[in-house]
Parts: sequence; C-alpha cells; structure tokens
Amino acid sequence: DVDAIDAQTSHTTVQLPGLVSIGTFVPTLDESGAAAFEQTTKASLASGFVFNSIIPYTAEGAAVVDARTLTRANEFIQGNAYSDYSLFVAANETNSTQLQQVSALTSALYINAEEFDASVIPSFASHFGAWPSNKPIIVDAKSTSLASLLLLASLFNSKIHVTNVTNIDDLALISMSKKKNLNVTCDVTIYSLFFSQSDYPGASFLPTKEAQKALWDNLESIDCFSVGTTPYKLAKHLGEPISAGLGFADSIPLLMGAVHESKLTIADLIAKLNANPISILGLSQSESYIDVNLDRKTSTLKSPVKVWSPVKDAVGSVERVYMNEQTVSLEGEFVVTEALGKESIAQHASSISNESAVD
Amino acid sequence: DVDAIDAQTSHTTVQLPGLVSIGTFVPTLDESGAAAFEQTTKASLASGFVFNSIIPYTAEGAAVVDARTLTRANEFIQGNAYSDYSLFVAANETNSTQLQQVSALTSALYINAEEFDASVIPSFASHFGAWPSNKPIIVDAKSTSLASLLLLASLFNSKIHVTNVTNIDDLALISMSKKKNLNVTCDVTIYSLFFSQSDYPGASFLPTKEAQKALWDNLESIDCFSVGTTPYKLAKHLGEPISAGLGFADSIPLLMGAVHESKLTIADLIAKLNANPISILGLSQSESYIDVNLDRKTSTLKSPVKVWSPVKDAVGSVERVYMNEQTVSLEGEFVVTEALGKESIAQHASSISNESAVD
Ligand SMILES: [Zn+2]
Ligand SMILES: [Zn+2]
Ligand SMILES: [Zn+2]
Ligand SMILES: [Zn+2]
Ligand SMILES: [Zn+2]
Ligand SMILES: [Zn+2]
Ligand SMILES: [Zn+2]
Ligand SMILES: [Zn+2]
Repeated sequence: DVDAIDAQTSHTTVQLPGLVSIGTFVPTLDESGAAAFEQTTKASLASGFVFNSIIPYTAEGAAVVDARTLTRANEFIQGNAYSDYSLFVAANETNSTQLQQVSALTSALYINAEEFDASVIPSFASHFGAWPSNKPIIVDAKSTSLASLLLLASLFNSKIHVTNVTNIDDLALISMSKKKNLNVTCDVTIYSLFFSQSDYPGASFLPTKEAQKALWDNLESIDCFSVGTTPYKLAKHLGEPISAGLGFADSIPLLMGAVHESKLTIADLIAKLNANPISILGLSQSESYIDVNLDRKTSTLKSPVKVWSPVKDAVGSVERVYMNEQTVSLEGEFVVTEALGKESIAQHASSISNESAVD
Repeated sequence: DVDAIDAQTSHTTVQLPGLVSIGTFVPTLDESGAAAFEQTTKASLASGFVFNSIIPYTAEGAAVVDARTLTRANEFIQGNAYSDYSLFVAANETNSTQLQQVSALTSALYINAEEFDASVIPSFASHFGAWPSNKPIIVDAKSTSLASLLLLASLFNSKIHVTNVTNIDDLALISMSKKKNLNVTCDVTIYSLFFSQSDYPGASFLPTKEAQKALWDNLESIDCFSVGTTPYKLAKHLGEPISAGLGFADSIPLLMGAVHESKLTIADLIAKLNANPISILGLSQSESYIDVNLDRKTSTLKSPVKVWSPVKDAVGSVERVYMNEQTVSLEGEFVVTEALGKESIAQHASSISNESAVD
C-alpha cells in the first residue's frame, strides 16, 4: 500500500519521546523479584519505555502495602533497573494509617477494586483522607466500585486515575466526571485496543468487541495507553508461560499499525504514552527519545527478552532508545552495562520529594 | 408493664406536630385516580399525616414525567385531597429537557433506580444539570446506582435525598458523603424498621434481619421515616389486596411501640416525621398537631379507610388531628367536609414558588 508515510522512503523512521508506562506488572517482587524486575525493565526499555511505574500487585497478590514491604521490594529491585521507575503502594482494608509513612516514597496509591467486595469501597474513605492530594490515586475499578471511588475522589478533592478501562459505561462515567471538573484521568491497556473477547472467548478482562469499538470511538476521553496487567492475564488465560516483560514488545508495533491505518496520530501516541502519564505521575521531563522504523519487522531485532506474544509478524521496530544522555539500546540490543539502571532510577528524584528508601 | 409514660396515667396522650409523608404511594393516578388519591389522603390524615408528597409511580409505572402528565394527574387529584400534598416528577431516559417546565410545579425530581439498568444512571447527568439546585432529587437507589447518583449530586452540587434505604452498605456510603458535606439526606420506611426478610421470606424489598438491626443502630444517620412503597410491595408479595392508603395506620402504633421500648424518643419522631421532611422538601411550617393515645388499641377507632395490615393488636391511637386551624379528625372519624382538602393543598403555596397548576 502507498500512503503519506510510505511514499517518503522505503523505511521511514519516526522519532518519539521515551515512552512512560503508567502501569507495569512484575510477576514477582519477592526473593526472585530481582530477576523479574530486571527482565521487566529490560523488555520495556528495549521496547521504547524509559520509565516504569510498578503496580504493587504480583501474581501472588499485593506486594507493597506499608513501609516494611516497600523497603523489602526496594531491596530486591535496587541495582536491577534498566529503566527509570517508581513504585505504587496498594490499598488494603487496614493500611490507611500507614500511608502517611510511605506516600513520600511512592508515586501513587493503587486500589485494585477486583480484590474487594464493592461494599468495602466506602471504607476506603480513610485512604482518600490520608493520601496527599497532589499524588494520584490509581484505581483499577469497574461499575459499582468505580462509581464509589469517583464519589470518594469528588468528596475528598483527590487526583484519581482510572486504569484499565474496558467498558463504555465506565468511560461514560469518567467522561462526565471530567466534564464536571473532577480531577480524573484514565487509561486503556494497549492489548484492550487490539484484542477482544471475540478473539479470546472467556477472556472477561478484555473488552467485548462492541466495547472495543466504543473505546476507539472515544479516544479523546482516554488520557493514556498502558501495558498494565492485560498481557499477564491473557497469557494466564491461554495457559501460555508467564514471564516478566509480557506485552511491552507488542506496544509500538500494534500502535504504529493503527497510525498506519489512520486510527491514531503520532500526536496521540506522544500525548498518551509520554506527556499525559508524565503529568499524571508528576514526573519531571527527562531528555529521552526513541527511533521507530515503521516498516521493519520486529523479528529482525535482537530482542534482549524473549516472551510469549499473541502478535504475529509484527512490523514497527524500536531501533534506538536514548535516555540519560546516551544511547542505551540499538537494534534491540543493550549497548550499556547494568549500572545505568541505578542512574535512571535516581533521575526521578526531582519529582518525588523526601525520597530516601528508593535511591 | 410500668414505665415512665404508663406511670403518669392509665391513658397517656402525647401531642406531636402533624406528620409529613416524604413518599406517599398512590396505586393509580389515571381515571380511577381520584378515588385512590382521596382514599390515600384520608387514610394518611386519619393516621396523623397532614402532608403527602406523592411518589410519581403507580402500580403501572411512572405517572408524572412531563407537563402533560402532571396536568392530567392534577385533574384527577383536584378537590379530592384530605391532606396537603405536593407532587414529584419522575426522571426517565428522555425527559431531562422537559424538567425546566415542571420543576416549579413539583417539589422534587424522583429517580426510581430500580427501573433502570445501573449503566443508564450516568445518563441522568442531564437531569441533575436541569433540576433547580434548591429542590431535592429523591432517589430510590441501591449500591451501584446509589454510588453513581451520589457522584452526580456531588459533581452538580445537587440536593439529594435517598429514600427507602434497606442495607447498611448504602447507609455507610450516605453517612460518609454527609461527613464530607455532600447535601444528602435519607429515609427508611417504617415497615423496614419493623419487618424483615426473616419475617417474610423472599421479600427482597425488605432489609435482612441483620441489616434491620444495623438501621436501628444507626438511627442518627437516618433523617426521615417514610411510609413509601414498602406496604404496597409487601401486600403484593403476600397476595393481599392492593388498596390505596396501605401502611399509614400502622405508622404511629409501630413507632410508639418502639418509643415504649426506649428504642426511639419522641424527639426522634418529631425530627424524622416533621422537622426533617419539612426542611428537605422546603415546605413552610404549618400549624398542625395530633394527639396520640399511647395505650389505646387502634381497633377501638372508627377508621375511615379499611385496608390490609400485617400489624396485629396495634396499640397507639391517633385520637385527634388538627390542621388548617381546625380539628379535622376525631377518634379516627373525619369531622370536616371534603372541601377542606383544597384548602390544605393551598397551604403549602408559600413554600413553592411559581405554582399554578396544583392549586
Ligand atoms: Zn503502508
Ligand atoms: Zn531502517
Ligand atoms: Zn481466563
Ligand atoms: Zn528515586
Ligand atoms: Zn407500658
Ligand atoms: Zn384516652
Ligand atoms: Zn415478592
Ligand atoms: Zn400548592
């Protein structure tokens, strides 16, 4: 096919700012967490993500809920980060009094509503009261629970971000709340934009085909694209191997395919994968960029992490990742030593005050 | 038994201000509505209720949804009111644009969430936008729908009243919203305080035994006691005859029984059946009182309306009802002609501006 981009040259390269993952899932953050975290940040960085906000849930449940578990996670993580990163702390039914202690060391409070009966949600009022108003409360929540959490955000003047939106009623509720000046933003996972329950029957964590269409029709209401937990859930659903770094390598190929089909613009990608997540997480702008070859098959790259993927014959390759004043990845291969991880972690210091345990 | 009240005299009379029904159900408001309305206001007035706010739903569904249906209901009602009254207008999925026209002629917007899929609730945003902020939006809603409606009230700075609370999670959500200064109030139906799903298996519209205990334990969070639709639903559930005026005659006997058992105070009754509903509905204080004989069996009264009741051997009789500067009911019998109905309707004029159709 011949279109504006293709017509220019046989292999067109687009430069984008480094991508920010507003929700990165690491399968484990315990003793074996060092390797999982290293592999996750390697996979994400080679795929163009220079920053990872780490979801405080692993395959075993909530992993970061207080100062003790935060310190523990940092021990496993330290020295193993290829990208910059920050941690979230998970809300549970009893830890509202511990939030004051950890809020300065984390970038968001994370509420995984799936873990709680909808009737429990009002009891999170104390969490909304305790959490600093300038940092987001990130909620993975639907219908009842979502409405309750938006109500809490409204009552407490909180900054709330709804992650992993998969249905149109939830998006309507969020859009309406935005219109009435609630401080609310949202993201859709990239897999949710390209895979539906029609593709994978029984995969209730994916949108229906109809809902997926509605998500595409309402892109202007969606602030960010995320990787999130969907790749992990899909692999689990299909009985495919669970490994660290699932989903990252598919992000640019899937999204660039949509740009190619005029369903997305490059400006959309920059807004939803860089500018908006940076603003939501309160990060400082770092100098980073990635070069994407729009027509190159990803199979021609030397990927540092091999993981299962539902995407076949992907086109759209991240040929270079530049961050922290140097090229860190070329043709999928790292051109730096492990040491860089530490430096890039330190880089987010300016955005998080009173930090200590992380660095 | 001998207690403070009994010790005073063998038949103790307590004087209360005239009761206000914040939600009165009339089984029909169509051609046969005149008789149903007359019987409802007769039953309520003889039972001590001098004011009825008419729920815009009948046994057939929403009856007042726009100017045309409001005019029609008024035609049937006019000249048949024994008590003062006002009408509510029901929200449906399409009538938000018609609210401006009828808001001045009605005292509240009524949303019966049971009639709508929870996913429809966010679409009521336009109703919240259109409804005047000084008049209440009364919602019969639970869980998901309740949270969504409270969110709308919060976003639109609306005055919201939750009617017919039957479970503790909903009450917790309301209490929390109150604490954060949302303009929200609520009521529990009198039947819900005295009958539970344990008494009537399968009667899902009643609280569970456990929820009922929780309602009693949280009386300070409950602004009003109402008659509501519960008596109608219970009669229907049990296959008992549906007639106009169900539930009113049981109100004082049931509540006075609770006063007798020290579960309620007379001050509670005055607040929840007079002061609070008057304030919520924005009514003007009218001079009215009722004399209640605490120890007299209601079977000794000459009730003007005979309807089915689940209450046996009720004690606590309304011996006199005084309103509009005269005694209107004595020993359960009316001592006035029908004409009074009109006068008493006119009495609430001062509280509702721009009224015309009603009077
Ligand atoms: Zn092409
Ligand atoms: Zn090339
Ligand atoms: Zn599954
Ligand atoms: Zn740091
Ligand atoms: Zn006694
Ligand atoms: Zn007597
Ligand atoms: Zn039934
Ligand atoms: Zn009037």
